[in-house]
Amino acid sequence: MAGYVSDAVIRRLPGYYRHLRELEKQGVVQISSQEMGKQMNLTPSQIRQDINCFGGFGRQGYGYKVSELKEHIGEILGLNNQHRMIIVGVGSIGLAVCNYANFSREGFETVALFDANPDKVGKLINGVPVLSDQELEKYISEHDVDIAVIAVPDVAAQAVMDRVAACGIKAVWNFAPIDLKYDSSMIVVNVHLSDSLQILSYKMAHADD
Amino acid sequence: MAGYVSDAVIRRLPGYYRHLRELEKQGVVQISSQEMGKQMNLTPSQIRQDINCFGGFGRQGYGYKVSELKEHIGEILGLNNQHRMIIVGVGSIGLAVCNYANFSREGFETVALFDANPDKVGKLINGVPVLSDQELEKYISEHDVDIAVIAVPDVAAQAVMDRVAACGIKAVWNFAPIDLKYDSSMIVVNVHLSDSLQILSYKMAHADD
Repeated sequence: MAGYVSDAVIRRLPGYYRHLRELEKQGVVQISSQEMGKQMNLTPSQIRQDINCFGGFGRQGYGYKVSELKEHIGEILGLNNQHRMIIVGVGSIGLAVCNYANFSREGFETVALFDANPDKVGKLINGVPVLSDQELEKYISEHDVDIAVIAVPDVAAQAVMDRVAACGIKAVWNFAPIDLKYDSSMIVVNVHLSDSLQILSYKMAHADD
Repeated sequence: MAGYVSDAVIRRLPGYYRHLRELEKQGVVQISSQEMGKQMNLTPSQIRQDINCFGGFGRQGYGYKVSELKEHIGEILGLNNQHRMIIVGVGSIGLAVCNYANFSREGFETVALFDANPDKVGKLINGVPVLSDQELEKYISEHDVDIAVIAVPDVAAQAVMDRVAACGIKAVWNFAPIDLKYDSSMIVVNVHLSDSLQILSYKMAHADD
């Protein structure tokens, strides 16, 4: 498969996937990089370059077959693999992630939730059990878990990171608004909601620059 | 202030802000770009370049004063301005945004929630009233609103975008997993959670490349 692929390209891949899925839904069979560029606010050459990172695709002058390209990008994104997630922290973010139907449709299945609050332990959220935070290590040792979602307050996040890393979990989706420390063998993607809102604020403040 | 600033720099600013706030909390008064680079996994020259985009700051060999630089970046981000938000859609994402304490601490105040479900209308979430989706236009015309948060399902999102745009709202924070269409005068920042999870999946699939 591909050699080095830049972060910028990787960041664009889910957008292509989403757009192609939308086109497929609308019954579009074939699309040119020109047309796709117009719809996605990208230049046709950028689209061709991005897609070529992963091997030749599309034919000069013919464009791309929508379903084929969607499948191809889905494969590149690893969406053919099933992913089993645990969510640590059953606050509003943990609940939102657990309740978000799209994830399970895309092969990300939440198998357990963990919380330190005994009032939450034993409940079922969207069919998924809430277990005691104390049982984290035991659960991971007895079940297949691919991804840990960190949805605890920022002061508790590093400890959760350390615990799941010690259990051998390699992938973390972090919602706590801090920069976690971890071994370089770990794969960590952060959703810093405040960052996103601050970027909106930046753009509002500089709209007339 | 600054002229053209690249998206990549803008995307890094909240990380600087967060890091400097953390350093301030720890009582760090002064920091070099070398040290900051080590902590943030960036090169010192990238840090200096990023910060220089917004005018000279720091003195060769002396580094940056933490509180001063934090204030400076906060100003660049527009965090000195108060922002009044409405949230359209009281599902789990809308609730999470409304309940997230950090936003109000950073000057983003949620003033009203809107939902189409009559069972939700009239409730208070974190002290904020849930109004009927029918009242959206009336509310906006009678109150100062800076930001609309779109937290409805994807099929309903474009209609909400069109309605808030028609009311003169210029800034939208969108959580619906679709690419919205809007006038180029609008400022839109998306949080596509599926994209973020797909990037994690990509990195897991390609960890051994």
